[in-house]
This record gives sequence, structure tokens and C-alpha cells, in this order.
Amino acid sequence: MLENRIRCKKLMDKIMSPDEAAMLFETGMTVGTSGFTPAGYPKAVPIALGRRAERGDKLELTLLTGASVGDELDGVLSRAGIIKKRYPYQTNSSIRNSINEGNIEYCDIHLSNFSQYVKYGFLEEIDIALVEAVAINEDGGIIPSTSVGNANIYVEKADKVIVELNVSQPIELEGMHDVYSPKNPPYRDVIPILKAGDRIGTSYIPCNPEKIAAIVITDIMDADKKLSPVDDISNKIAENLIDFLDNEVKHNRLPENLLPLQSGVGSVANAVLAGLIYSKYENLSVYSEVIQDTVLDLIDCGKVSVASATSLTFSRNKQEHFYKNIDQYKKKIILRPQEISNNPEVIRRLGVIAINTAIEVDIYGNVNSSNIMGSRIMNGIGGSGDFARNSYISIFVTPATAKEGTISCIVPMVSHCDHTEHDVQVIVTEKGVADLRGLSPKERAKAIIENCTYGEYKEMLKDYYKNSLESCKYKHTPHNLEEALSWHVRYMKTGSMRI
Amino acid sequence: MLENRIRCKKLMDKIMSPDEAAMLFETGMTVGTSGFTPAGYPKAVPIALGRRAERGDKLELTLLTGASVGDELDGVLSRAGIIKKRYPYQTNSSIRNSINEGNIEYCDIHLSNFSQYVKYGFLEEIDIALVEAVAINEDGGIIPSTSVGNANIYVEKADKVIVELNVSQPIELEGMHDVYSPKNPPYRDVIPILKAGDRIGTSYIPCNPEKIAAIVITDIMDADKKLSPVDDISNKIAENLIDFLDNEVKHNRLPENLLPLQSGVGSVANAVLAGLIYSKYENLSVYSEVIQDTVLDLIDCGKVSVASATSLTFSRNKQEHFYKNIDQYKKKIILRPQEISNNPEVIRRLGVIAINTAIEVDIYGNVNSSNIMGSRIMNGIGGSGDFARNSYISIFVTPATAKEGTISCIVPMVSHCDHTEHDVQVIVTEKGVADLRGLSPKERAKAIIENCTYGEYKEMLKDYYKNSLESCKYKHTPHNLEEALSWHVRYMKTGSMRI
Repeated sequence: MLENRIRCKKLMDKIMSPDEAAMLFETGMTVGTSGFTPAGYPKAVPIALGRRAERGDKLELTLLTGASVGDELDGVLSRAGIIKKRYPYQTNSSIRNSINEGNIEYCDIHLSNFSQYVKYGFLEEIDIALVEAVAINEDGGIIPSTSVGNANIYVEKADKVIVELNVSQPIELEGMHDVYSPKNPPYRDVIPILKAGDRIGTSYIPCNPEKIAAIVITDIMDADKKLSPVDDISNKIAENLIDFLDNEVKHNRLPENLLPLQSGVGSVANAVLAGLIYSKYENLSVYSEVIQDTVLDLIDCGKVSVASATSLTFSRNKQEHFYKNIDQYKKKIILRPQEISNNPEVIRRLGVIAINTAIEVDIYGNVNSSNIMGSRIMNGIGGSGDFARNSYISIFVTPATAKEGTISCIVPMVSHCDHTEHDVQVIVTEKGVADLRGLSPKERAKAIIENCTYGEYKEMLKDYYKNSLESCKYKHTPHNLEEALSWHVRYMKTGSMRI
Repeated sequence: MLENRIRCKKLMDKIMSPDEAAMLFETGMTVGTSGFTPAGYPKAVPIALGRRAERGDKLELTLLTGASVGDELDGVLSRAGIIKKRYPYQTNSSIRNSINEGNIEYCDIHLSNFSQYVKYGFLEEIDIALVEAVAINEDGGIIPSTSVGNANIYVEKADKVIVELNVSQPIELEGMHDVYSPKNPPYRDVIPILKAGDRIGTSYIPCNPEKIAAIVITDIMDADKKLSPVDDISNKIAENLIDFLDNEVKHNRLPENLLPLQSGVGSVANAVLAGLIYSKYENLSVYSEVIQDTVLDLIDCGKVSVASATSLTFSRNKQEHFYKNIDQYKKKIILRPQEISNNPEVIRRLGVIAINTAIEVDIYGNVNSSNIMGSRIMNGIGGSGDFARNSYISIFVTPATAKEGTISCIVPMVSHCDHTEHDVQVIVTEKGVADLRGLSPKERAKAIIENCTYGEYKEMLKDYYKNSLESCKYKHTPHNLEEALSWHVRYMKTGSMRI
């Protein structure tokens, strides 16, 4: 069976145990791994690194990935105190806690840009690329598993490459990937993708076999992506969003089959796409970072004809369904490096409809998607900025309130800004839709408060806006800077934003 | 002489006086004009509109331009109370005051995106396109003058076109423009610019001659762009910036002739480019919005071999010099629509070095470039977001202090955010350079305070950071939200940010 997966015979003698491979790492190294969401990330070697640290070996690493990864990587290494610095995105609770405790330096970066940081030489050199694969070709070419992420960049740039050959990942994934790496300026060419389904690269990551220092055989499965059950609020948000899209089609601002869809990762985003299953739309396409459960449903029911992303992340049931029908899905799914899945050039050309989730939105349309109460990292900006700014239309969704109503997700001023007023065109809550296109700040405030909020917070926001408009000498973006962040301060003191 | 400029004979009978043309406007109309900086904007008809309003005619218009324009347009119309709403950028003191007084609704939008707002049908339909030209071709094609801006979009979309044929603009400008308008998705193609100097379009704006409702002959010159004399602080900022670029070249992170340069409009940006005149660099290129005085100097001394922009804006002396040598400059200068000069696809492909000006920067690297003290509009975001996010490297320059030291341009938290921490890689003040690439928020705070500030404010920032780090429970982006905006509050109360 291994002959089918290690096609370069001379690499057979590079097979070693995870613990042996773990000994190739030295403290101070910079390590780039595959993985984007809990999909296609290395598992056996990180677990062995954790064991090595437990044995008392001092080991501090700078860790670069595609985006978030599973607990075997971020969880194990952060709990073992191995991660000194982390780029460019995470969602794991252990590492998040370490960052918020000040024990790990974390720098979150637009997911399309991070590859450029590496390729332009803006960061330390990559010592080791650690990548999961389903097979290695005769010439060393590495066939990724359930994500591409930045694996191709790290393999290109690293001194040494360690491959986790994961036999739990079906060999039939081969042919689903499309690996393409733009040259650096001034030699960069056009990225010739004109439709979501266009293929422009290779089915493998090119790699000089001499660089492959170890091959570790593993069968640890990708973690499943647990999604909260779709609740009433998510359903209502999805309904409001689809009404909005219907109206755009009706007024000829969108074609009958819409334009390629992007949606962020998580339960609300998943619910929004689920809402399309019973819609009138046909022949939809997806140009996104991640393919989640509902995209398979949309393919199954014939609504989506092609889906492009950098990662496949499913709940356990859906993963089994995917594996069973992989040959069918392979005709409709393309996995690209995140430099391409999230590329501004392609997103703007295709006219992607961007649907991202906000932590909080302010009355002038600025969005916080990363730092709770201004300081506490949740996940990071991820790819939301790649899509929002370059999209055909940029939509942000959020429930109107959070934490049993103790937090209003619409606030006078965001406590941290990831998406400025210039990049936010539509806000959708369970209450309704604020269409901000072409509105001045004051017009936006009225639309957001009126359409997206309700109850006590709505009255409080009206008061804040009215008082600011009256008291502020300058009436372009009226604020009372003594009160602008007072809701957050109150929450931290009393546990509620309510007065 | 007019035969040379109005080459479509049947249009000769459309010639009328500015006052006659002004009667074509009706209250409630949406008007799109040429103009980007005080260059290539209509002048005679707006002045006539002002006269019409003075006569008591009620006239309220929504005004769309390329960017800022001269006083004959923004100044006259706003003082006459004609502008109800304004997009997407301004710098004129009369209109700025009206906006800040709450009398004009103003919506500033990324300058590359605004054309899409119009083309996608996100705004009201354009009733009249009012554009300055040097000539009209046999087939109605309009040859712009000293800028292109959004003129091509407005001509395409408007019901009626009014041309101000400006005979003070030399006919030799013909051939300098390169007009190209991408189709809307899903039919959009690649924008095939691979080098700053590539030409991909036509030398004129296509126009059905039937749409031309009036031709007004004028000889009012473009306003001159007054630049403050280069002062010690600007010189020092320029010196620090060039040192930084030298170091990038030394470490092979930039080629010997750098990459195409973009620099914002204004005195500091002009000084920065002036600093290159005595540098070692050769064969430079410019891919920017605006060509200012120093770009001509750089062409004259052989440092710049090609410059692409959407506008030419000079001081009076330099304008005369330009006109005198226009045939030489025509070989090296290209004027494009702002949808192309500021296009993310092209900026990222070419690897533009983006140099923009900040109003204030916070210790975590967020930049305010539009709203003073959170509420008072200065100009707007302009094209800075198009360039910063898509650049090879994103640099922001600012003096460390403003208003005789009563304002620190480095603050604990920006009072408005136009460029998030994710889009700001390097900060340069007269004190030094903070290279933020790959730094976590806490590392950024240390670099910015240490390298970019001095004196009393430096100590105050150190205190704020230290106290926040100690008191804040979450240590990713430590803030004290009760104090974060207190410097701005103090300035508004006492006239100084100093304690």
C-alpha cells in the first residue's frame, strides 16, 4: 500500500517514527506547517514534540500555519509551552488562552497576505516545513490532503521538509488540488482565473526530494468541525440575507444565479448557506476559503455547480459522506493555496459576494472581528479582509446581542477596528438589514439603529447618537469621546452593557 | 482653432454659454464630473450654476467627482448651497466646513471602488456627466485634460453629457491618456498591465455624440497646487524613509531600482519623493494616483523612467515647465482612469511601494487618516486604502506631533480607524522608523513608542502602555478603555494633549 503513496522509491529510507522526526527540531526554529481549519494539518509529529517537551527538552518554536488548525498542533504545542510566536490565525482555546495571558506573541495577518510576508523575506527564514500529504510523487511532488493553505510556500522556502503521510486521508483526494504560486514582483504575471472553477496549476506541491528529511506514516483523522445546531436567530439572519439578495436580483444589481459566494467559517455562516438550499437559486458557485457541511448539501441538491476553496472542513458525519462520494465531489471542488483562494485580484475580478461574521459593529458601520472588549483576542481577522474589501458586495452578519443579552453587538464605537466604514456595505442581524451603500456616516447610524437593533439597546443607541449629534461641534461623524467606549467599560465592571 | 478641438462637425451647434448650459441642470439631479485633485475638473459651468443659485433658483445636487477638485467646483457650489450630497473625496475648505457643520452629507469611499458603486448600480443614476476636455473626436470620443478620474464612467452612465472644452489646456495632452473600463462580473477579464508603463486602452473616452447636450468653451486654468515649502521635519521623515528603503535593498527585500512608487498627495509626500533626487536609485517607476512637482524633477534628472497616475497636479511654475516640455513628458507619463490607477489587481501584481500620510497612529499600528478627534472630517480616505492593503510594502508617514506640539500624532488609541493594524507595516516620523512587519501588538507598541516618539509624549505613551499591560486582564492588545481616548478628550477641553 505504501508504494502507491510513496512513489519516489529512494524516499522509502526516510520513513521514521514521529518521535525520531521530532528530534529534527531545535529550539529557536521557525516552522511552517500545512493546515487550514482543522483540516490537513500535521498531527503525529506535533504530538511527539509535546512528548519531547514533557521529557524536559527545552523547545521554543515560531509556528506558521495556513490558518487555524486542530488541537494536535495548536493545543498540544501551546499546552507544552513550545510556541513562542504564532502566525497568522488561530481558533484553539488553549493557544487563545496563552495569547491572552501574554505567554505567546500572536500576529494575525490577512490570510492572502501572509504568503507574501514569507515569499518577500519579511519574516525569519523557515527552517522546517511540516506538511500532511496523501502521497509523494516520483519527483518529490507532495500531494496535499484536505487543505492546501500555505503548505506550498513553506515547502518552497524551508531548508528541510517533513511529510506526515496520512493514510486515513483517501488517496482519491489526488486531483482535487490546484497549486499555483505567483512570482514575486517585478516578475509577477496575471493570475489567469476567470471563473471559480478554472484550474491553473499542478495537482501537487513541487518539492526537491533532497529536501525531504523525514516521512512519518500516520492515520490520525482530521478533527471534526463541530457546528452549533442552527438556531432561530441564525435562521432569521439567513432569511433576512436571502431577502436582501432577492431584492438585488430583482433590481438587476445581481445576476439570476448571483455571483460566486464566500462565507466565513462557523455556525452563523453555515446557517446562511443552509438558507440557500430552499431558495430559488440555481447554478450557484462558491469562491471561498473553506468548504463546510452546507456546501456539500448545496452540491448534493444541485444548487452549487462548482466550489473553490483552500480547505475542506466537515462535521464527522459529513466527512464520511464526503469520503464515500469523493469521486463525484472531485468534479466540482477545487482546493487552492490560500494566496489564490483569498487573492484580491481574483476576488475582485469574479465579483465575489462576501459574507463575514462580526463580533461587534458600531453605528457608523465599523466592524470588530477579532478583539473582544478591545483587548481579548478571539480568533483573528482571518480572510475576512481579503474578501470584504475586494468583493462585489461586502456583507457582515451578527446577532443583535450576545451572552444572553448582556452584550449589544451594535455599539456606539467599536473597541477594536478590523473592517473600517469603507469596507462594510451591508449589516444583517436577526432584526433586519441595514444597506449602507452610498450613505454618509449619519445616514448609516440611522439605518443601523433602525433596522438592526431592538429593545433597550435600540433606545440607548438612539440616545447616544442624538446626544452626540447635539453636543459634538463637528457633525460628520458625531461622537462623544467620553461616552464612546462606556458600554464596554460598563460590561467589564458590571457584566452587562445595560444601564 | 476650434475645428482642431471639435472634430465632430455636427456638434458645433451644441456650443453654448456656461449660463445656458447651467440651465440644463434640475434640482434633485445626480451629477458626475471629471477632476481629480485641482486638475481637469469643470470650472465655467459650476461658476454659472453658482450665479443661477444667486439669482434665487433653487438647486440641490448630488455631486460625484474623481476625488478633490478646485474651488470653482467644490467651493462655488458649496458656498451657494447647491451640494446636498458629495462623493467620494474632497479637500476644499468651504465644502469641508459645510460637511462638518452638518449641511452636506459626505460619503468617502476607496477611490478604486467608487467606479464600481456607479457601474454596479449601487447609487442613483447619473443624470448629467460634466467633463473637461481638450478635444472631441469625429465619433464623439472625448479627450480628457489633466486628469481622467471617473470621467469615463460618468460619460458611459449619464443620460446627458456636457463638455467643457478648455482651450487653456494644451491639445498636446492628447495621447497621454489610456482609458480602459473593466466589464462587470461575471464578464470581467484580466487587466493586462504587467509594467507601470503598459498601455491597454484608448486615448479618449468613448461617447455617443447624441448624448452630448452642450459644449462650453472656456480658458480657465487648473488651480495650482500650493505646496508648503519643504521643512526640516519633512526632510527628516524623507531621510528616514530612504534609509529604510536602502536597508531593504541591502537585504534583498527590494530590487536595486526598487518597485513602482506610490505616494499620497501633499507636502510631506512631495518631500519624500524629493528625497529620492539625491539618492543612488536609477530607473525608478511611479504607479500612483497623482503626479506632483517632484515626479517631474525625478523625470528631469533621469531617476524616473515612467510614471502612471490618474492626475497631473502642479504648482504654477511647474505647470508652465510641464506645458513647455509636454512632448518629452508624453513619452514617460500615462494618465489612467482611477479604477485602473488604484486597482488592487494591478497594485498587487506590480508590487507597489505605498507611502501614505497619517493624521494619527496608535501604539498598536492603527491609522486615522480622515476624522480629526473622531468626528471632524479632514479630507477622506482617498486612495490610501487601495494602495496600502495591496502594496508590496505599506508605509505611513506622519510628524510625531502637530499644532505646535499640542497634539501627539502617536496616541494610545486612534479616535477613528481608516487603516487597521493589518494594513500598516512601517511607520516613519522625523524621530525614526518603526518596522512593524511580523510583530505582535505588544511588540508593535514598543517599536512605535521607542522609534517614532520623543519627549513628554513618549513618557506618557510608555505610561499608558505599562499601565494597560498591568491592569488589563487580557494581554493580546492591552488597553485601558477608560483612558484610551482621554488624550483626545483633553485636547478638546484644554487645547492640548499634554497633561
